[in-house]
Amino acid sequence: MHLPSPCGLVTLLTDFGARDPYVGIVKGAIKRANLRAEIVDLCHEVPPQDVAAGAMFLGAARGRFPAGTVHVAVVDPGVGSARRILAVCAAECYWLAPDNGLATELWRDDPGCEIRAVSPERLGISIESSTFHGRDVFAPLAGMLSGGRYGFRSLGERVADPITLASPDDPCVVWVDHYGNLITNLPGARAASVGVAIEIGGRRVPVVPTYSAAPEGAVVAVVDSYGMVEVAVVGGSASLVLGLGRGAKIAVVPQE
Amino acid sequence: MHLPSPCGLVTLLTDFGARDPYVGIVKGAIKRANLRAEIVDLCHEVPPQDVAAGAMFLGAARGRFPAGTVHVAVVDPGVGSARRILAVCAAECYWLAPDNGLATELWRDDPGCEIRAVSPERLGISIESSTFHGRDVFAPLAGMLSGGRYGFRSLGERVADPITLASPDDPCVVWVDHYGNLITNLPGARAASVGVAIEIGGRRVPVVPTYSAAPEGAVVAVVDSYGMVEVAVVGGSASLVLGLGRGAKIAVVPQE
Amino acid sequence: MHLPSPCGLVTLLTDFGARDPYVGIVKGAIKRANLRAEIVDLCHEVPPQDVAAGAMFLGAARGRFPAGTVHVAVVDPGVGSARRILAVCAAECYWLAPDNGLATELWRDDPGCEIRAVSPERLGISIESSTFHGRDVFAPLAGMLSGGRYGFRSLGERVADPITLASPDDPCVVWVDHYGNLITNLPGARAASVGVAIEIGGRRVPVVPTYSAAPEGAVVAVVDSYGMVEVAVVGGSASLVLGLGRGAKIAVVPQE
Repeated sequence: MHLPSPCGLVTLLTDFGARDPYVGIVKGAIKRANLRAEIVDLCHEVPPQDVAAGAMFLGAARGRFPAGTVHVAVVDPGVGSARRILAVCAAECYWLAPDNGLATELWRDDPGCEIRAVSPERLGISIESSTFHGRDVFAPLAGMLSGGRYGFRSLGERVADPITLASPDDPCVVWVDHYGNLITNLPGARAASVGVAIEIGGRRVPVVPTYSAAPEGAVVAVVDSYGMVEVAVVGGSASLVLGLGRGAKIAVVPQE
Repeated sequence: MHLPSPCGLVTLLTDFGARDPYVGIVKGAIKRANLRAEIVDLCHEVPPQDVAAGAMFLGAARGRFPAGTVHVAVVDPGVGSARRILAVCAAECYWLAPDNGLATELWRDDPGCEIRAVSPERLGISIESSTFHGRDVFAPLAGMLSGGRYGFRSLGERVADPITLASPDDPCVVWVDHYGNLITNLPGARAASVGVAIEIGGRRVPVVPTYSAAPEGAVVAVVDSYGMVEVAVVGGSASLVLGLGRGAKIAVVPQE
Repeated sequence: MHLPSPCGLVTLLTDFGARDPYVGIVKGAIKRANLRAEIVDLCHEVPPQDVAAGAMFLGAARGRFPAGTVHVAVVDPGVGSARRILAVCAAECYWLAPDNGLATELWRDDPGCEIRAVSPERLGISIESSTFHGRDVFAPLAGMLSGGRYGFRSLGERVADPITLASPDDPCVVWVDHYGNLITNLPGARAASVGVAIEIGGRRVPVVPTYSAAPEGAVVAVVDSYGMVEVAVVGGSASLVLGLGRGAKIAVVPQE
């Protein structure tokens, strides 16, 4: 498998929020390991310990950053336990995440990706705290990897059995975004045919090419930037208008 | 007109919020177009689709960044429609925004600024999604412009009729900031004379040189960092104390 | 005293929040003073004018960033008054803060650190606004210092009497973090002995090595990443479950 050269970029995805200096402290630890690393926030508002939402966001980063980017994901209810820390090479980038399913989407679509279990002690990483491996393990790892101090294959042994999240059984709303749009796990291609509509919350919703194709206040379905079907209210919040959120079922139905 | 050399800096102003990976994904797309671009967040908490608030924030960036900065503003209810994308050269910087009034303040005070309508297809930009032009159009444009791959004048044809927001008729509160300060559109110079006070919400408020010139809990008016009159409560929230928000009328009156 | 060479890194700690372009504008002002400065956010969600919380966050940055980092802290209810602006050299880094106790932790543990009162006018810094010294004073100072344009000792005269926050009398909760964890000012070493527990809110809580050592829903005490005792609920919010917040008393007691 081809190993991309690190490009110096590190991204961070966490459930740390903005209230505390936690994210800033992680960045300090990355810079201490590699002063030249450049850090980009992917998102820090994953709901606390919500591995499924984190996995979706991490998957959304595939193909969206330069080759050789080191993506760091820390949504880690098992911090301080014996859970493994994974390093993955997939989609021309490197990915660091706890072994709790957070990186599931990387290997779901790309079974040829390479996964390794990191041995922090072998890399000279000493762990100061049992509650903040973002700072004590992930950050120095990301610094070392992004700066080329260690190559991917020297991080640890290969892993064949990473913890993998189950795919949801039925198409449903998996996230409500900042605008109140209902993000689903229904692939956009399924709604692309002529003559179909979307059913959600007992209501039939037309599929339109873009928000502005319908008047203000209309409930519509579009193929969103995740490539999935999204239910939106033009100029408003679908979540508030429809009273729906995560878990709401969705189906493709014939147009009336 | 003098065209400044790009300095490598790109700023982002959006209504994307912090809840989703949208801002992070835009940054990835900028770095894919120009790995050397340096990205600074101007603000991402413009209320959803609130072009007027976005225009005020964008105007506040004039003169505040190095010459040659590329400012990107995406508050874009018309995303995916035929609305134009504007590139503006003004105040020694470049500005990218949808043609919906978001960049109004750039030409309101500087009629000599140069405005062009971007032709993404001519620049080789392929648009993947109809809902996320921040990622698919603005980001690669910003990368190209900040890296010098295309010059400003090659982005598209000149525009003489950009959509322009109307100026508010009467002095009023236009924004409530993080501290609960009431930001108005009344120029500070209007309140700088001796013997004047500010009337708001049926109350006469003294103009003071700085917050700390009045005791804790006092309601005061100051000239704020926007250069406008701001009504504040020392050590508290004027919005909560006075029960006022956007749209509340304000007037200059004689001191009692 | 050894003066570290600036490494080009600047961190920002403020109570500006995310709602306004204030943080972005400060970054622009830093870049105007030093285009090569690299800026990292420490935290911007210090509660408005909460100097004690800001002091705790600033203290948490000690030793966590590369030597020569310039840390800027702006929680500044006295902005525009005659309060001094301090520059501190401590823990191999530089620190800029108003003289209101915000930097207390720097000299509490390190009486040999060097403190100076900055003379902005002597450095050619002209102050435009009486409400935004973050932009008009702290930012250009940080740019100059991080870029080596002025050395630390040329910033102003030595200060022997900085305003210092009093230490809390009794061990108590000093912060509730994003997860609802109750952060206390009780040093972790005090809870490290065998046979001790923590008493809080009339309840006896076991000290465990890490969150995952107890079942979901359990109330536990751990030594957190600040090095202090923290009371947490596994997989939940201790603040919500216990109904406790800042000021709640905590004590070390024998295990039952």
